Amino acid sequence: MVKQQRAARTREALVQAAAAAFDLVGYEAASLAHVSKSAGISMGALTFHFPTKETLATAVQVRGASTTRAATEHLRDRTERPLRTLIDLTLELARLLDEDVAVRAAARLTRECPRSAAPWTDEWLPTAKTLLEHAAKEELRPHADAEALLTLTTHLVTGTESHIRRCALVPGERESAQEQLCRIWQLVLAGISRDPDALL
Amino acid sequence: MVKQQRAARTREALVQAAAAAFDLVGYEAASLAHVSKSAGISMGALTFHFPTKETLATAVQVRGASTTRAATEHLRDRTERPLRTLIDLTLELARLLDEDVAVRAAARLTRECPRSAAPWTDEWLPTAKTLLEHAAKEELRPHADAEALLTLTTHLVTGTESHIRRCALVPGERESAQEQLCRIWQLVLAGISRDPDALL
Repeated sequence: MVKQQRAARTREALVQAAAAAFDLVGYEAASLAHVSKSAGISMGALTFHFPTKETLATAVQVRGASTTRAATEHLRDRTERPLRTLIDLTLELARLLDEDVAVRAAARLTRECPRSAAPWTDEWLPTAKTLLEHAAKEELRPHADAEALLTLTTHLVTGTESHIRRCALVPGERESAQEQLCRIWQLVLAGISRDPDALL
Repeated sequence: MVKQQRAARTREALVQAAAAAFDLVGYEAASLAHVSKSAGISMGALTFHFPTKETLATAVQVRGASTTRAATEHLRDRTERPLRTLIDLTLELARLLDEDVAVRAAARLTRECPRSAAPWTDEWLPTAKTLLEHAAKEELRPHADAEALLTLTTHLVTGTESHIRRCALVPGERESAQEQLCRIWQLVLAGISRDPDALL
């Protein structure tokens, strides 16, 4: 039992160190030697638990996915106000990307390894799609393009992730990712143009 | 003269090969040996022209920036319909990101090397900001949050770049990046909600 606990602690330290590495430099540039060193765990033990970089990346993605699932589960079952729920889903993703290194790493790995076993987007994109279908009946403007809105939602999440990374590299005061995204949704909800039909 | 022409051709081949590498795997993972091999130019000649990976990355960024400047210059001088001009600017960026490997590499390098000498965003973000200031007077809805709109514009460009990369990794039929972005702008211009004030 003690041995199992020790193995679990070793795996945990490796997943955390790998998440930090994948988050910072991406899949290709991340080095197992660096992960081993920053976790304080020998290369022998690392390769015992994770024989390849791919298995380590999958473990990080599974971790990021399960954190995301736990934090957004309550939104999936909400039946009222689907558009508000979609916005809340993206705000929760913004918070997770801001605060959780495994979630941020999972988002990056999903972009860089498109055939990965546990894509991060699987945790929220199908929910977003269902919410938009429900919103189309009552909350969206008539003829609003639901497919483009799903892409816009994805762009907002990607843009938020990119903004968080930029802020991490060039530190300074900034509003939270959630606050910023909230202001953007206000624009998108009400529209920005006095005369939209004249423009496109 | 012939010698100078040969040197210019060598530099050109190296910049093209480096753009492809930085675009595909990013700054950290790109290898000078791989660039030398794919350009068909010796490591000796490569390090003669570009002594470090950083100088090569700067050359790629300068190339991406100058292509972007040439393609968007006519939009900077347009004085009428600034909101329409802003949209045209993002559509032109979407086309460049879709079609030009040096532009795509410059966009990626700017994200990954935030202290770089020639950030790609410098080519269009100041123009976007000025256009939004002009649009605020006549074309934007009263009280529209211009700062949030600039961030939204950046998110749309980042999201488009990410979408193009995803499509490159998982090939298949898709609408052009410009067409997709145009549909998103239609949503943003008119707004998506029947009752925006009730939502946030």
